[in-house]
Amino acid sequence: MADNMTDLADIFYKDNQLNFALGQPDYPIYPKQIMQFMTEIIDSQNSRLHQYTMDQGLPRLKSILVKLYSHLMPTVNIGDENLFVTTGSSAALYCSIKAQVREPGDRVLILDPSYPYYSRIVRSVGGLSVSVPMLVDPSTGRWLLDTDKVERVMKSEKPCAIIINTPHNPTGRVFSESELLCIANLCKTYNVFAICDEVYEWYVYQPNKHFRFASIPGMFDRCVTIGSLSKWFHVTGWRLGWALTGDTSLVNAIHETHACFCISSSTPIQEATARMIEWEYEKLIVDHSVEKIDHANQLSLSYWTETCHLLSEKHEKIAKILTDFGLKPLPVDSGYYILADCTELSAKLNLQSGTAFVTWLSRQGIQCAPLAMFCANNDDSQRYEHMVRFCFIKSDETLRKLSERLDFIKRTIVSQVSNIQ
Amino acid sequence: MADNMTDLADIFYKDNQLNFALGQPDYPIYPKQIMQFMTEIIDSQNSRLHQYTMDQGLPRLKSILVKLYSHLMPTVNIGDENLFVTTGSSAALYCSIKAQVREPGDRVLILDPSYPYYSRIVRSVGGLSVSVPMLVDPSTGRWLLDTDKVERVMKSEKPCAIIINTPHNPTGRVFSESELLCIANLCKTYNVFAICDEVYEWYVYQPNKHFRFASIPGMFDRCVTIGSLSKWFHVTGWRLGWALTGDTSLVNAIHETHACFCISSSTPIQEATARMIEWEYEKLIVDHSVEKIDHANQLSLSYWTETCHLLSEKHEKIAKILTDFGLKPLPVDSGYYILADCTELSAKLNLQSGTAFVTWLSRQGIQCAPLAMFCANNDDSQRYEHMVRFCFIKSDETLRKLSERLDFIKRTIVSQVSNIQ
Repeated sequence: MADNMTDLADIFYKDNQLNFALGQPDYPIYPKQIMQFMTEIIDSQNSRLHQYTMDQGLPRLKSILVKLYSHLMPTVNIGDENLFVTTGSSAALYCSIKAQVREPGDRVLILDPSYPYYSRIVRSVGGLSVSVPMLVDPSTGRWLLDTDKVERVMKSEKPCAIIINTPHNPTGRVFSESELLCIANLCKTYNVFAICDEVYEWYVYQPNKHFRFASIPGMFDRCVTIGSLSKWFHVTGWRLGWALTGDTSLVNAIHETHACFCISSSTPIQEATARMIEWEYEKLIVDHSVEKIDHANQLSLSYWTETCHLLSEKHEKIAKILTDFGLKPLPVDSGYYILADCTELSAKLNLQSGTAFVTWLSRQGIQCAPLAMFCANNDDSQRYEHMVRFCFIKSDETLRKLSERLDFIKRTIVSQVSNIQ
Repeated sequence: MADNMTDLADIFYKDNQLNFALGQPDYPIYPKQIMQFMTEIIDSQNSRLHQYTMDQGLPRLKSILVKLYSHLMPTVNIGDENLFVTTGSSAALYCSIKAQVREPGDRVLILDPSYPYYSRIVRSVGGLSVSVPMLVDPSTGRWLLDTDKVERVMKSEKPCAIIINTPHNPTGRVFSESELLCIANLCKTYNVFAICDEVYEWYVYQPNKHFRFASIPGMFDRCVTIGSLSKWFHVTGWRLGWALTGDTSLVNAIHETHACFCISSSTPIQEATARMIEWEYEKLIVDHSVEKIDHANQLSLSYWTETCHLLSEKHEKIAKILTDFGLKPLPVDSGYYILADCTELSAKLNLQSGTAFVTWLSRQGIQCAPLAMFCANNDDSQRYEHMVRFCFIKSDETLRKLSERLDFIKRTIVSQVSNIQ
């Protein structure tokens, strides 16, 4: 089984393929304004915007992020000293995990399925991953978080940290307030630091709601919240993220690792991001004050509100396309990934696993990712062998091509195989 | 004593100060073309240029770098698999050092004075720095590399790696072919990997010549050569660098750490850099073919050739300004830093060290850096306490202001103190 993204690169990066494997848009879904701001920065001929800025982040960017998070978590007292700008959200994860793994072999708890980089980073900084697998409720198709099992593992393995990813990649699951309160209590009881990857926060479909772990009383000092430009504004190639925490000793530890690695993050990219978030913040305030989305007046909506609506539409489209093909998509609360059970179709095609299904589909010109690769504990990957992930932050044109190509495959190969059986 | 840049940030970042401490330009010395290329990239509305690219680097950038290095080192067989693009040259250093420090406490040999991040990175990845101090020949003012001492330390401390920085920051020293051949032999004898920070390579003043460590027969597999966009084109805030090595297992190790930290480097910045190096490459070929610089035909010169000439002029200006003030500048072969001995002036002012001199000068509105902070081994910092570093990649206007302000200080404070004594 491929245990990380890179091993599948040969499949994913082929030309003339419809790529639903990689988590990146294939069309300009990013806001026009962010490009406009970058052009203005270049045109200004302001030399300072092209030289090193403060290690901690460009003051203008830190300032608007502190303002925004203060608006989102009004009960939490957030200052400039709580925020550190990093070169992508991965860098925020890397520096945060490195700060927690003080001794070789220190444990980090991961809920599987999980973003493959979590366990790669833990290994890279000398730690060990321990995982609690989530399983699908067969009656509802929803992913279940077994908090009893989380407690047992905290008790036995004594992890220094837990990674909480909500909204969740690859399942699209949004953890509820009660689930997160339960995890928070366990973190206090067993003295486990929470690393909260909330990068998909703006793309939670109604009526689901994103609940911020750091907003739980007493948790701001016991967690770090990670945000991402790639996910907020869909420029995955710009590489900017940030870490927010009440634990200022963690900010210092992040500073030390981040400065050693790359001194500071890109100045022009930080400046463009600052201007973009300032622009977005004003619109967001309006959206939040009108309570619910007013489609008649959509032009005044924030990019996030609009894009969330758009992604939810794309989700409905792809769920129908995959169902029509014979896959069984699981419910999705958020984001731009959908999982589908390929058991029946694989059986028809005489394929032994999701990975084999992915390889087969790739030969038909369509890439998706096997769920088994989203697994911190390889021994558990068998549990996920019957599912595959499609990324659907793709143009309508690409979705239409997917529909056509799957329809063609169904009418030719699949129906022939079915006739033989 | 301040042991790193950050501790002195309070001094360095003050407004209304003439800042000669930080290693960055204060005016648009970067090539106009690189901004033009970035504008074209933004205007093209090509979504792909804003999304993740290959972990190893944008193929177009890798391609021109391989072409350029192959031109510069015709006897070395360089392929695409030998190059890895990183988020700044620091990231190339970090990943390279991390790959060599396999066990906690593994030694890395550093020649002092040294860029402070070398020892910070070694510490950050769990290694230990051992240093060999260079000293100034009192008769010539030139820095001496004691290769016998390097051999003794290699023998006794068994370092896994040595960091070789040529052209050298902060001394401006360019190591000779015979010095580097001697180090290369020691590396072979004692099985020490060479990490070659050659980021100032384009700014070596005539008649000095940059000698590439990797071009020594047998060394390409035993060293990594590190390059930097910040130093090549003076956009320190863009954060791009690269590592070149014949050791493909090192490329893989760099890949693992770099991907864990930041997935890949910024796509639009890589694209602009690729176009800039392509542009520069054509001019460089012309320059190299005409053997010596033709000032009458300067417009056809490469940016590197022009800027090297400009920096050498700035060097002459600042050396005169510092001498007139009563400091004793040391000779400089390259780059944009100058060291000056402040012993006499400090004595006049009753200051006990270079660090005290830096603080005093800062109160007069001028920042420079104490040489003592460029020291991997703090015990050795005393050796360098009588020297300070000025960065002179500054506008002529800033250099004029420095001259005026130092002249004013000399006529007022210094002469008053001198009168009292």
